[in-house]
Amino acid sequence: MNLPEIHKFKSSQNIKRENKAKIIYLLSTKSNKFALLKNIVDMHRTHTCGELRIVDVDKEVTLSGWVQKVRNKGGMVWVDLRDRYGITQLIVEEGSTATEIIDAAKNLGREFVIKATGIVAERYAKNDKIPTGDIEIKPSRIEILNSSKTPPFTIEDETDGGEDIRMKYRYLDLRRNVIREKLQLRHSMMQHVRSFLSNEDFIEVETPVLIKSTPEGARDFVVPSRMNAGEFYALPQSPQTFKQLLMVSGFDRYFQIVKCFRDEDLRADRQPEFTQIDCEMSFVETEDIYNNFEGLVKYLFKNVKGITLNEVPRMTYANAMKYYGSDKPDTRFDMKFTELNSVAQNKGFNVFDSAELVVGINAKGCAEYTRKQLDGLTDFVRRPQVGAKGLVYVKCNSDGTFKSSVDKFYSQEDLKEWADKMEAVAGDLLLVLSGDTAHTQNALNELRLHMGAALGLRDKNNFAPLWVTDFPLLEWDEDTQRFHAMHHPFTSPKAEDMHKLDSKPGEVRANAYDLVINGVEIGGGSIRIHDREMQKLMFKHLGFTEKEAQDQFGFLMDAFEYGAPPHGGIAFGFDRLCALFGGSDSIRDYIAFPKNNSGRDVMIDSPSPISAEQLKELAININ
Amino acid sequence: MNLPEIHKFKSSQNIKRENKAKIIYLLSTKSNKFALLKNIVDMHRTHTCGELRIVDVDKEVTLSGWVQKVRNKGGMVWVDLRDRYGITQLIVEEGSTATEIIDAAKNLGREFVIKATGIVAERYAKNDKIPTGDIEIKPSRIEILNSSKTPPFTIEDETDGGEDIRMKYRYLDLRRNVIREKLQLRHSMMQHVRSFLSNEDFIEVETPVLIKSTPEGARDFVVPSRMNAGEFYALPQSPQTFKQLLMVSGFDRYFQIVKCFRDEDLRADRQPEFTQIDCEMSFVETEDIYNNFEGLVKYLFKNVKGITLNEVPRMTYANAMKYYGSDKPDTRFDMKFTELNSVAQNKGFNVFDSAELVVGINAKGCAEYTRKQLDGLTDFVRRPQVGAKGLVYVKCNSDGTFKSSVDKFYSQEDLKEWADKMEAVAGDLLLVLSGDTAHTQNALNELRLHMGAALGLRDKNNFAPLWVTDFPLLEWDEDTQRFHAMHHPFTSPKAEDMHKLDSKPGEVRANAYDLVINGVEIGGGSIRIHDREMQKLMFKHLGFTEKEAQDQFGFLMDAFEYGAPPHGGIAFGFDRLCALFGGSDSIRDYIAFPKNNSGRDVMIDSPSPISAEQLKELAININ
Repeated sequence: MNLPEIHKFKSSQNIKRENKAKIIYLLSTKSNKFALLKNIVDMHRTHTCGELRIVDVDKEVTLSGWVQKVRNKGGMVWVDLRDRYGITQLIVEEGSTATEIIDAAKNLGREFVIKATGIVAERYAKNDKIPTGDIEIKPSRIEILNSSKTPPFTIEDETDGGEDIRMKYRYLDLRRNVIREKLQLRHSMMQHVRSFLSNEDFIEVETPVLIKSTPEGARDFVVPSRMNAGEFYALPQSPQTFKQLLMVSGFDRYFQIVKCFRDEDLRADRQPEFTQIDCEMSFVETEDIYNNFEGLVKYLFKNVKGITLNEVPRMTYANAMKYYGSDKPDTRFDMKFTELNSVAQNKGFNVFDSAELVVGINAKGCAEYTRKQLDGLTDFVRRPQVGAKGLVYVKCNSDGTFKSSVDKFYSQEDLKEWADKMEAVAGDLLLVLSGDTAHTQNALNELRLHMGAALGLRDKNNFAPLWVTDFPLLEWDEDTQRFHAMHHPFTSPKAEDMHKLDSKPGEVRANAYDLVINGVEIGGGSIRIHDREMQKLMFKHLGFTEKEAQDQFGFLMDAFEYGAPPHGGIAFGFDRLCALFGGSDSIRDYIAFPKNNSGRDVMIDSPSPISAEQLKELAININ
Repeated sequence: MNLPEIHKFKSSQNIKRENKAKIIYLLSTKSNKFALLKNIVDMHRTHTCGELRIVDVDKEVTLSGWVQKVRNKGGMVWVDLRDRYGITQLIVEEGSTATEIIDAAKNLGREFVIKATGIVAERYAKNDKIPTGDIEIKPSRIEILNSSKTPPFTIEDETDGGEDIRMKYRYLDLRRNVIREKLQLRHSMMQHVRSFLSNEDFIEVETPVLIKSTPEGARDFVVPSRMNAGEFYALPQSPQTFKQLLMVSGFDRYFQIVKCFRDEDLRADRQPEFTQIDCEMSFVETEDIYNNFEGLVKYLFKNVKGITLNEVPRMTYANAMKYYGSDKPDTRFDMKFTELNSVAQNKGFNVFDSAELVVGINAKGCAEYTRKQLDGLTDFVRRPQVGAKGLVYVKCNSDGTFKSSVDKFYSQEDLKEWADKMEAVAGDLLLVLSGDTAHTQNALNELRLHMGAALGLRDKNNFAPLWVTDFPLLEWDEDTQRFHAMHHPFTSPKAEDMHKLDSKPGEVRANAYDLVINGVEIGGGSIRIHDREMQKLMFKHLGFTEKEAQDQFGFLMDAFEYGAPPHGGIAFGFDRLCALFGGSDSIRDYIAFPKNNSGRDVMIDSPSPISAEQLKELAININ
């Protein structure tokens, strides 16, 4: 190597590491055709763009980063230099700065990557909005490390880029602080989750990604095996059977933050690959699960958001449906359902009389709603997604009278009975739906959430967690005309309901639970079956032949014969948990490289065709 | 619920959590047909089997675990109860224990899962080999939670189970302490890696698993897309392009402990899915990489093994090949190569005269090797895996004379010259190979490692890390008759070698490095190209057409046009790092559910055929 100069200099990169600065040789070469590749032990920076303060004045520093903005006022040029850690202002002025530096600064474009060396100076006009606002750098050298074309959208917190263009240039979208901060939140949550669970003696175990396809549940993604022609691996929908085997192995407490895969037709906020906090414990009952994972949730709220949660309340599935019409009620606000069958039926109003369920909510203080507002609510409940036929309202007037949309069927005394049952007072508005139980509960749930939002009762910064317990074991599937496992086939039924398994399978409850926060299902799990005969019985009730059960889950049932302990667990949807903590409804911005609703990564253009040679090696053809 | 009894009791499960015991209701029911499923808030244990000490004497406790051993001496029965945390002895004796408890204890089988409640007592004969050896439990109740068939192999540190049966019943193999401890080591290493990197401002980002197939490098596993018929995702061989995009995004420092996939014909110690510690940094040169990741390695050795490492030495690839014949030298011992061309050629020994390289090692103190031992070494180097034609030896006798296998070609003075060059003294044995450079270096490397092992110089508890630097950019591939990227196509060439890219491409060095410990490649990385034109040039030299390069890596080259910073990184083979820390040559026991050499999981029997319906939905056929 032909080195023109050798300087002694301090190491650059260990920027946040104390007591580690060490003397290295800085070898600088003249810039050449391949300047971007020069093999010198170079110093790209002494500090980050978020680090310098008034105490650093007069130091010579080197910063590297992106040009956020250039302001050119004739004799003076200001450059905002940005990196992940912050923004530092560079200033060059005619007279005190060399001409070539001034020219360089003037010609910088947005998002150019530069390296600037200079002296830290105190600013005349300080900026108290940024931590580095007391200082600026007077550069003696500016080097362009890389230029930039004009980005297809502005790299600002509020951008002009639509979803499609942002996804195509996701690497630029991620450059926006608001997006990067979401992924930093995710990073922080991951570390806290692992730290809590490790301290609680959970062992992190990586379970395999190449596993076996099983037709139960959602569709699997499959992977053709080249070495075993005609055979396929499947990607896991969850590590369920493996974590149960780890309990059989005596691991006692397991966790993993793990990618899972489902080949489903994607709804707006689903991803074909998603991340779970997956946990399992031995020698536990539901109570132990509630205590342990309430601990995790409280720890996260405390350490990530500084919020102290109270004890997490519990509600049975039956009550959740009865009072909220949903297995994931938003309990940030009350507005519980009141059944009105006894007071609303048999008064001549045929719509109610023929209904399985008449049920209402009390919208406190909404008696003054206008005709237009009430029509709006009727339109809302009639939407196909909500599905009600109509809406009955009762205004509780300030003078103690009632005004309803069904005045011709109900007297003031009748309506007083409704109001009393619903604990309504003057000024309240009663909203009543009717029909078959399932659809009516669902529609009133939608209306309740709508009213909660309208009344400002669903504050993003208020968190209401809830355990929903005692889920049904089975649910009837109209398409296949058989029962499916509501949670999964490994969930244990409640012993006291076992006698109904043949006669009324739909009434058997399971040792299954969900953790719901603000109306969002954040986690779910169950106490598992750990007995071979019970597991066989369950598969039988789910329509498996004995051979099918053995072919697909024989390894698990075999394992149960070698001393399987009682065990249970839970899995949390990590993408959704992050979005909840970030105050967002959408998970997409909490995933670095998400796929669109067609399961496509538009940035890398995947999926894509593969070569004929690859297909041949895998012994498959495309239809 | 019909509950015969209600007791107040302390919570069970928060066993290691202080200040968290809370009063819950213990509801116990009579055992019934589904006793294993009874839905009571039950207490499976008050303590683990590794927890009780002399201070706990006279406490009533409940333990749950596996029966390790039952010793029945007539009037007395001892039961060793095991869980992940340890072993506690139960003792029942006629006279002081109820008859049904004694009968129960006598009938327990190995690996039964039981729950025992009783009083902690001081042992008469203490066992100082286990932490609970001062106490035993006198049970008043023993409940069988699950029985066990006789395991197919013994669940002991030394087992009688062969590899095949252990893999089929991996859940029982994992029950062995020696295996579980390996996975606990892995758990601990993961937490330490993340803790170190998080403290150093690295952000953990999950990159996608469903990506795009690229023909460069090893074979991809592919995933047919149902929603995009005829198209395929690929599983990542590494998150390389995504981590580079994160640098373009300004993430500055990224890490991930991540599963990667390669569909290769498996050698003994390869797995189709494996785990990497994947890292990338912006604004760095090689020196910064060395400093940062030396920090990580030192931190792990200190915190996991209690070993303080010195500065990690560095060696160029060229010197590694010259002195060790390997790019991953085991530097726990010296025994460097000495080239002997100048002193061994032109003395009439045709084998040497016609060789490109004559090179030897000095096996210190081995001059007394017998004929048989020397023949053994000759057989060793002639193995197909080593591939030498023969071995020349020179014994440095204690009287100052030399005895060699080529005495008829070389005088004592000639051999003295060899010995001097190799710094040999009386008692040493010189072992010399010859032939073309590549094969001879490789063969002598094998012989050196063999001698190192034979002489006890490769102690598992001694760790010699080494940076191997300045790897060649390209390597010639005989099969395809073209150059391939030695590291990968994103690696930057050394600027000072750029002029040879057309004339002598094989001589161009890269800013690429490996971390080697004890002769094992633990990590590798490079400073990347961050300039579009340079990346295009590189693809051209690797035989890509411009269209191919754009189709496959257009997104990355496009990204380089929007302000890509200089960046570089490294990836560590995590499975191998764990095996190294555990003192093992094989990675398999450090993976919870490994696959065999045919890529098959014999426990779950995967890969396996999928249904005609699945194939149809995916629009593929099997050939």
